[in-house]
Amino acid sequence: MTATDKKAKIGILGASGYTGAELVRLLLRHPRVNICLLTADRRAGKAMADVFPQFSPYHLPTLAALDAVDWKKLEPDLVFCALPHGTTQKVVKDLLARVPALKVVDLSADFRLADVAAYERWYGHPHAAPELQKKAVYGLSEIYREKIKKAQLVANPGCYTSSAELALIPLLQANAIDPDAIVIDAKSGVTGAGRGAREDMQFAEVSEGFHAYGVGQHRHMGELDQEFSLAAGREVIATFTPHLVPMNRGILSTIYARGLKAKPQDLHALLLKSYAKEPFVHVLPFGAFPQTRHVRGSNMTFLGVVADRIAGRAIIGSALDNLTKGASGQAVQNMNLMLGFAETMGLEQVALFP
Amino acid sequence: MTATDKKAKIGILGASGYTGAELVRLLLRHPRVNICLLTADRRAGKAMADVFPQFSPYHLPTLAALDAVDWKKLEPDLVFCALPHGTTQKVVKDLLARVPALKVVDLSADFRLADVAAYERWYGHPHAAPELQKKAVYGLSEIYREKIKKAQLVANPGCYTSSAELALIPLLQANAIDPDAIVIDAKSGVTGAGRGAREDMQFAEVSEGFHAYGVGQHRHMGELDQEFSLAAGREVIATFTPHLVPMNRGILSTIYARGLKAKPQDLHALLLKSYAKEPFVHVLPFGAFPQTRHVRGSNMTFLGVVADRIAGRAIIGSALDNLTKGASGQAVQNMNLMLGFAETMGLEQVALFP
Amino acid sequence: MTATDKKAKIGILGASGYTGAELVRLLLRHPRVNICLLTADRRAGKAMADVFPQFSPYHLPTLAALDAVDWKKLEPDLVFCALPHGTTQKVVKDLLARVPALKVVDLSADFRLADVAAYERWYGHPHAAPELQKKAVYGLSEIYREKIKKAQLVANPGCYTSSAELALIPLLQANAIDPDAIVIDAKSGVTGAGRGAREDMQFAEVSEGFHAYGVGQHRHMGELDQEFSLAAGREVIATFTPHLVPMNRGILSTIYARGLKAKPQDLHALLLKSYAKEPFVHVLPFGAFPQTRHVRGSNMTFLGVVADRIAGRAIIGSALDNLTKGASGQAVQNMNLMLGFAETMGLEQVALFP
Amino acid sequence: MTATDKKAKIGILGASGYTGAELVRLLLRHPRVNICLLTADRRAGKAMADVFPQFSPYHLPTLAALDAVDWKKLEPDLVFCALPHGTTQKVVKDLLARVPALKVVDLSADFRLADVAAYERWYGHPHAAPELQKKAVYGLSEIYREKIKKAQLVANPGCYTSSAELALIPLLQANAIDPDAIVIDAKSGVTGAGRGAREDMQFAEVSEGFHAYGVGQHRHMGELDQEFSLAAGREVIATFTPHLVPMNRGILSTIYARGLKAKPQDLHALLLKSYAKEPFVHVLPFGAFPQTRHVRGSNMTFLGVVADRIAGRAIIGSALDNLTKGASGQAVQNMNLMLGFAETMGLEQVALFP
Repeated sequence: MTATDKKAKIGILGASGYTGAELVRLLLRHPRVNICLLTADRRAGKAMADVFPQFSPYHLPTLAALDAVDWKKLEPDLVFCALPHGTTQKVVKDLLARVPALKVVDLSADFRLADVAAYERWYGHPHAAPELQKKAVYGLSEIYREKIKKAQLVANPGCYTSSAELALIPLLQANAIDPDAIVIDAKSGVTGAGRGAREDMQFAEVSEGFHAYGVGQHRHMGELDQEFSLAAGREVIATFTPHLVPMNRGILSTIYARGLKAKPQDLHALLLKSYAKEPFVHVLPFGAFPQTRHVRGSNMTFLGVVADRIAGRAIIGSALDNLTKGASGQAVQNMNLMLGFAETMGLEQVALFP
Repeated sequence: MTATDKKAKIGILGASGYTGAELVRLLLRHPRVNICLLTADRRAGKAMADVFPQFSPYHLPTLAALDAVDWKKLEPDLVFCALPHGTTQKVVKDLLARVPALKVVDLSADFRLADVAAYERWYGHPHAAPELQKKAVYGLSEIYREKIKKAQLVANPGCYTSSAELALIPLLQANAIDPDAIVIDAKSGVTGAGRGAREDMQFAEVSEGFHAYGVGQHRHMGELDQEFSLAAGREVIATFTPHLVPMNRGILSTIYARGLKAKPQDLHALLLKSYAKEPFVHVLPFGAFPQTRHVRGSNMTFLGVVADRIAGRAIIGSALDNLTKGASGQAVQNMNLMLGFAETMGLEQVALFP
Repeated sequence: MTATDKKAKIGILGASGYTGAELVRLLLRHPRVNICLLTADRRAGKAMADVFPQFSPYHLPTLAALDAVDWKKLEPDLVFCALPHGTTQKVVKDLLARVPALKVVDLSADFRLADVAAYERWYGHPHAAPELQKKAVYGLSEIYREKIKKAQLVANPGCYTSSAELALIPLLQANAIDPDAIVIDAKSGVTGAGRGAREDMQFAEVSEGFHAYGVGQHRHMGELDQEFSLAAGREVIATFTPHLVPMNRGILSTIYARGLKAKPQDLHALLLKSYAKEPFVHVLPFGAFPQTRHVRGSNMTFLGVVADRIAGRAIIGSALDNLTKGASGQAVQNMNLMLGFAETMGLEQVALFP
Repeated sequence: MTATDKKAKIGILGASGYTGAELVRLLLRHPRVNICLLTADRRAGKAMADVFPQFSPYHLPTLAALDAVDWKKLEPDLVFCALPHGTTQKVVKDLLARVPALKVVDLSADFRLADVAAYERWYGHPHAAPELQKKAVYGLSEIYREKIKKAQLVANPGCYTSSAELALIPLLQANAIDPDAIVIDAKSGVTGAGRGAREDMQFAEVSEGFHAYGVGQHRHMGELDQEFSLAAGREVIATFTPHLVPMNRGILSTIYARGLKAKPQDLHALLLKSYAKEPFVHVLPFGAFPQTRHVRGSNMTFLGVVADRIAGRAIIGSALDNLTKGASGQAVQNMNLMLGFAETMGLEQVALFP
């Protein structure tokens, strides 16, 4: 490391949630960053180890209240926003007003929809920072890499959407499937719901059972519509159903495609080619289907294509860890692009299985 | 109970597996039967409590080898066959040759397909008892009740298929959906795989992860084809993908229907009407989606219908316990019909949640 | 059933929690009771099926606010109190003032400690109904059966304490072990913590991990002290550590006993004799150790005794389902005694495994 | 990295099991080693990705049969033996005869007991390589660091024993507790049992339940006896009971100590001092108790000390990941010592929670 390789100063807003903890896990082992700020309003004054004891052996800043941060003194290079949906837009607006050169990776849904009207329709209130929404870059690195490198504000994608988009965007771009007949049956571990206490996320409510939720209507649909339509060059509206799996981490999207313009093997070849040089997207051999456990704790997405027994149809699988590639790992990948680091830096962990 | 209400003598062939244990659980509390025979070749000579310690407090026959049974002396009224697929057909053939009046509920797949050619295609070998296959009645009580009452040999349906068929048969009979566009995304607990030691069913291979299997090709498809085609009065081939959930019991089928001839609400009304008098099929209010945990350990199937955001499409959910309504509970329901008992007898357990 | 066998009218106060749901599960199948009242203040006006969808197929009273109950009109024979610790004593006091003949089984900790001073020490506030505390009978049926039959108010024991007491009371009564060297290492499923949303009971906080809590100090100790001292005829204070297992139901107490006055086999013989006629306590063969899964959903307690490799020591196992024998099943057993029904009525369910 | 920093060549014998996979996970990210050999007799010829798909994105040697290895050509610097107990001693003997300079870290139990008679007593057969057993160094790095640095053959400790020994050895060395009254109640995840298919390790046999095994007699006792006696300078025999937790990874030992020579706080201070400079043993603040989830996937051991309510007694907790610090992480730590690398190299992963 040369003298110019000084470490970047990084802040995490909302460090007491699961995506916050996952950022800390990854950044503690990132060779080019220092964590200089951790905020958590309800837990301000506590040590991170009080909130997440796995960090007991490490030195980390005490949790601070967001309002109490001395930005001038701190001068962070980049902050991750891991705050709740809806409140983030105002926080980021204020922050950029105070620290104009600051780079931001936002993990909430607040800046993902480029269309102000679509945001209002899906989230039920007008956007509080429409001028920022215009500048924000959608942070799916494999698709928007060059834009992300130059962005000040990156909207990290949703976990379900990342999973489905990595599988389908190349196919829609190539016009290889019928865009009007997509069915995405998605299954997620519980950490996607965050850490806040909810009766329906209690162990006894989740374990030894399986259910769907948001059937027919789910906010991630707006994001899918945007990205699928951009990829296809026409409006695409897919059927999408999320389910809750009694496990902590992982998303598997089982995607049903019809109206194939070519053989299922050709879909596979297309994905293989699209991601040939991507470090974090791995296409399994034709006929193999991905499992969430094989990407747990890693930043990998595994894709698989299988022929349906019905001609002209294929079943596509996409598996990622919702907290890593589906959230905090993707966010670090975006940080690497924004700060000029190697894209894989700090993200080389091998999946933890069993 | 009058003098004529003497108890029926019941045998269970293959009592050391999960469906065997589930039969014992239910029959121990059935007021009109006595368990007179339990077979388990590999464990012959052992007590049932050695194999399933939950039965320690109860008096049960010692596990016997099938070949060692003295049928003349025993004179059972009905036996449940919970033996592996493929071997059952020969066992039942021999058994009926020896005990011609015996009634049989077979829980394997051996007698489910009425068409000998279809059996051979799906199972890879010719059927060993084609004359019995012709006599066997498909044991989905809600659909074939009257035939089951008169049957000597009932082929208990598969767990996945029961789940999908109860949801779709009334809709196909009414020509309410497009029969060429059905997608069934099914998720099952692990007990569907049986008790035999398999590396891929070890706790560490299943927990904290989610995956599909048999993608594109699965033996339950033959059964679905048969029943869906019968219901629709034309050939129906559906897309079907099974998945494994890290839980013991339960199947949820998420079913995507298109080409609706009427509103999703009308599909719901149709199911509600079809099952109005059925004790074991409960249709949730329109818009509600079933969860496997709410039927755990009970013989209930919960159905739900939700409108997709895309017009002309609906999402239908069907949840049952694969060991109860999906196997042994359904088998006892068939036994009740075959022996003239009240259909719900011994099956009134309320679901165990949490 | 004769004309005099009319059904008893039963109320459940606090029906929206797990012990409430478990009471409903059991009472729905009890041939001699009708559930005439379900209260749940926060959910008043809702159907029980909204709170616990497994009850959708059954007719049950709408959830009522406690204050809105018309006791005169309702005239229940017995109510179960499944309300939070601390608030119950006042509720029961008021209730008995209004309905003097009412029988009550209280599932909270409020009336378990006969000694007012001990209550205040363990719970941190003076008891609000000391005169009732004096009348309350400790509801461990196997030990206090005759008193329970005549009681108006029964204090249902804690789940951990039932597990440890059934194992140790006969041994302490017989002076068979050193009362000063008892170590109870107990492990419980999560439902013991109730249904209320708590961050530390979220699925992701509990699954794939194991921990102790209340180490060194836990409220169940007061109850253990009382019952062990009564059994031994001298003061007994045991070491007790509870742990949380990532499972819904079940408690296993691993109990270390020293200073054996005889061989470990003799401890086993003593337990076998003590419980020879008990329908809900089953002593496994010497050397076998109980598992929680084999009592799941049943009212059984399984006990086991194993010799330690160190002479003069034994290891005793006690397994029960914390919601059934450890709470609601025990409560129904007490109700049966109090109302003169057969003690096992409604409690004959066989354990649900797998 | 300088020219002299060439990478060491490492082999893994028995790579298709869980400890093998964990070694690969860790070594793939170790900057100073190359994996040059993976053996797995039953799976020889397969890719590691066929056996553990999480390794699909990485280049690894094809699985080889042990007999087919060309040792001359390969010239490994060190091999890890992750072979079954009992067979390893012969394998290592043959191996060292062929490759005399080879260093070996053995993860089996074969070389852990220095006393040949003790080995025969616990394992039921004479040791096949007693001369090697004499040379083998017990590989608990924190205790035997200097010997390990010079060793050719290191016997990696058992997972249960590492957990208990790290907690108790300093206390026994200091004569701070009664060595005749130790009770170790240990709880482990399922991966400790290995990957081979076993009926009792099937998901449905393990989930939603809890049980003890090896009660009164367990092979790890021999190892505990050896190390505790060495530490105390007299014979120490402890009571030890292992339990199975429905989780993949982690061991928690709840240890009951009596006869304290000083206050529980002094035990805590003693542990704190003993491990002040150790990178992989972290002592929590007095009164805090460790949880397995906070060390998952890391090489850390968390220790905690709590005062019992009974004077003169303390409860000590020790948590580690049985596959990492309890097996493969400990093995890599030993490799680092044996090959002169920094002890923490390749072991810096932060725990994965949630």
